[in-house]
Amino acid sequence: MNILAIDTAGRSASVALLQDDTLLYETVCNCGLTHSETLMPMVDAALKTGGIRPADLDLFAVTAGPGSFTGLRIGLAAVKGMALPANTPCAGVSTLEAQAWCHTGSGTVIAAMDARRGQVYWAAFDLTTHARLTPDAAAPAEEAVAFARSCKKPVIYIGDGAALCYNKDEQALPCPPALRVARAVGAGLAGRALWAAGGCVPPAGLMPNYLRLSQAERERAAREAAAKESETVKS
Amino acid sequence: MNILAIDTAGRSASVALLQDDTLLYETVCNCGLTHSETLMPMVDAALKTGGIRPADLDLFAVTAGPGSFTGLRIGLAAVKGMALPANTPCAGVSTLEAQAWCHTGSGTVIAAMDARRGQVYWAAFDLTTHARLTPDAAAPAEEAVAFARSCKKPVIYIGDGAALCYNKDEQALPCPPALRVARAVGAGLAGRALWAAGGCVPPAGLMPNYLRLSQAERERAAREAAAKESETVKS
Repeated sequence: MNILAIDTAGRSASVALLQDDTLLYETVCNCGLTHSETLMPMVDAALKTGGIRPADLDLFAVTAGPGSFTGLRIGLAAVKGMALPANTPCAGVSTLEAQAWCHTGSGTVIAAMDARRGQVYWAAFDLTTHARLTPDAAAPAEEAVAFARSCKKPVIYIGDGAALCYNKDEQALPCPPALRVARAVGAGLAGRALWAAGGCVPPAGLMPNYLRLSQAERERAAREAAAKESETVKS
Repeated sequence: MNILAIDTAGRSASVALLQDDTLLYETVCNCGLTHSETLMPMVDAALKTGGIRPADLDLFAVTAGPGSFTGLRIGLAAVKGMALPANTPCAGVSTLEAQAWCHTGSGTVIAAMDARRGQVYWAAFDLTTHARLTPDAAAPAEEAVAFARSCKKPVIYIGDGAALCYNKDEQALPCPPALRVARAVGAGLAGRALWAAGGCVPPAGLMPNYLRLSQAERERAAREAAAKESETVKS
């Protein structure tokens, strides 16, 4: 089974090519470049180097959220476009679950992404089985740290929000910053697990999971609430 | 500090670009292609994407052994060539230590490379501190497994010899095969630690650590021993 995995949900972009449980090729780009510039050349290099034609791909795995609104749309749109011609199955996986699949061992891994506005997107997983321990959530870093403290097992934080958690948790095990960066191999492994569980969809069924309202939606909601209040005052 | 890290010691080739403790770019190629073909284009892509000129590099990190004789020579020769013009410091790191630095958590990590002839190159490290627990050795996989059993902590096996160890050790924690592949980020982190400890050398000082005699040397030794025995018989 040939799997092309893509992650453009956060600051970095990554592409991985897997054959069954083997990693054939992977690139991680964490240089601050725009995903729309870097993604397709990375896909092209992965397929050419791996000697895999687009028609040979059996599964597309992509991080579907949480994450940056623009980043998610770039990754999902790219996968929809590539999967459409042959209606290839797609696995839209949780960005946090994909990050957790990049690590293994004993204890708990908490994937945390910087969600701005003082919050992180976070979720906890068992490091050995990758079983989910908490749902994906948008919350202050303190909430992730409180869960970590309630674990009886060693905890590591990963993702671009890990530093926000480590700042508030001196008991956690260290994770070198260079190992916290999201890798598409995790999306591939999470996608493979989703495929085995029958959770894949045709390309048209891939949907983002923003987890929070976009800035435009928040502003409209605030405007509408203000207008309603103003009407109530007038009447 | 800009670090270019290279690993061509085993079946896969990998290049990573680090800026201090941040990973800027990384490629892993595990497609069975010849390192001499893939290495320099991967270096070129890393530097161009990262916006780093060769003259901006402060440290070269390279896996110096154990590993494939040809693979080690490709990596070391490439680094010597690139580091020579500015006499840039070089960190020749243990291939096994570099692999261990790719993982973090709680317990013990045993890096094992398939050394053919029924042996693995192996060494054990603490997963939290990356402190070395055993010297690099060439031995039957049973020796690594015996050490793992003597540990009081959870153990994972990584590297292209991990399967040989897992076959003989049902008690170890699982490590998905896709996560066992060597990554140059580990060479970068191990090289940074060696630099901090004052263990770097000028490019001319980089030397391979083959750990075992090459086939040609083994055959010459066998011929010489046979000739000596034949002389003893004659006299």
